[in-house]
Amino acid sequence: MAGEINKGLVLLDYWVSPFGQRCRIALAEKGLSYESSEQELFGAKSELLLRANPVHKKVPVLLHDGRPVAESLVIVQYIDEAFPCTGPALLPADPYARARARFWAAYSDQVFEVGKRVWQLKGEERKQAREEFVRVLKNLDGELGEKPFFGGEAFGFVDLALVPFMPWLPSYERYGEFSVAEVPPRLAAWTRRCGERESVAKSLYPAEKVNEFLAQHKDDYGIE
Amino acid sequence: MAGEINKGLVLLDYWVSPFGQRCRIALAEKGLSYESSEQELFGAKSELLLRANPVHKKVPVLLHDGRPVAESLVIVQYIDEAFPCTGPALLPADPYARARARFWAAYSDQVFEVGKRVWQLKGEERKQAREEFVRVLKNLDGELGEKPFFGGEAFGFVDLALVPFMPWLPSYERYGEFSVAEVPPRLAAWTRRCGERESVAKSLYPAEKVNEFLAQHKDDYGIE
Repeated sequence: MAGEINKGLVLLDYWVSPFGQRCRIALAEKGLSYESSEQELFGAKSELLLRANPVHKKVPVLLHDGRPVAESLVIVQYIDEAFPCTGPALLPADPYARARARFWAAYSDQVFEVGKRVWQLKGEERKQAREEFVRVLKNLDGELGEKPFFGGEAFGFVDLALVPFMPWLPSYERYGEFSVAEVPPRLAAWTRRCGERESVAKSLYPAEKVNEFLAQHKDDYGIE
Repeated sequence: MAGEINKGLVLLDYWVSPFGQRCRIALAEKGLSYESSEQELFGAKSELLLRANPVHKKVPVLLHDGRPVAESLVIVQYIDEAFPCTGPALLPADPYARARARFWAAYSDQVFEVGKRVWQLKGEERKQAREEFVRVLKNLDGELGEKPFFGGEAFGFVDLALVPFMPWLPSYERYGEFSVAEVPPRLAAWTRRCGERESVAKSLYPAEKVNEFLAQHKDDYGIE
């Protein structure tokens, strides 16, 4: 068995996964090199993935010297804590600021979760999901406020948790009666600001690629 | 405004909330004194709760010198990080052990989430939810293994995250065709072991009280 395990850092990933992208951005911010192991998203799961994440059987998983860490925000915190002297800290040092960052990083999942309901539901339920989706964006915009990044001057945990969902927004417009014009202006400017960072630019794909991907996998996402 | 804000620690809570109980156990383990502010669960939300947790509008919220922290596992980590020299550490020091604790603490929410589906769904869907519920308990039992507590010898993050759900299990039997006899023996022994701790014993209520509460609030939980 020992021979099968890759040493160092291996990220089990899938190119368009926003959750995998969170980890890619974190690794890039830290300047850590790693091997990317592209997994099947819809086909048969690899033995490696099933062994590394037997509970959820999902990407991303980070293997560090063969030991698996699963769940994107757990992985990012692990990267921050396991490599404290490499690159910038991803979470702030102050306990209250850390708690606030954890709250909003977890909240950013709502873009994906409510977004799915915008696609999947019909009629009045879809209308409600759409309103909730806009409210989620407004809440995030309120937390960002006039700051350049969620944590203040420095790009960090909430930024990298949220930004991978932004190239998906045009697909919510295309398939879900959401209008990109409803993205609050500060959040739109923040998205552009994040996109100028090398760690983000090299980890994400443009909205057109997300659209193409979704067009091919409508059934898997409950899109009609 | 300043006059309205309580100094020190105030926990916005509801007696039977497993999420509030996580925070109570954490505060008790740390030996921190706090004021408990019992909230309405089903009636009108208090101004204090709406101001402290405007996004989710839910208990628990911990106010520390008037500053709110919401979401139970965020609160517990905050307590651990804001009071590092008070009482035992709730999370382990080692980064890998911390990541593992975060994964399983978050996973313990599945007992509540899948449990709700055991009550709410019907027919084949309920059968699937029931099977998933048993699988969740088995996964947790597998992670516990032969250790006295999830983190090893010391009671910690995963223990306090999971144990508040255990007095709910007889209610899944009563209302959801689950049998308490299906709780894996190691997990059952762990539940008793946790219950012997003062921090747990004084924070939780016996299963009969949970049952009484649920009998009064069947509609709110989708129980027939």
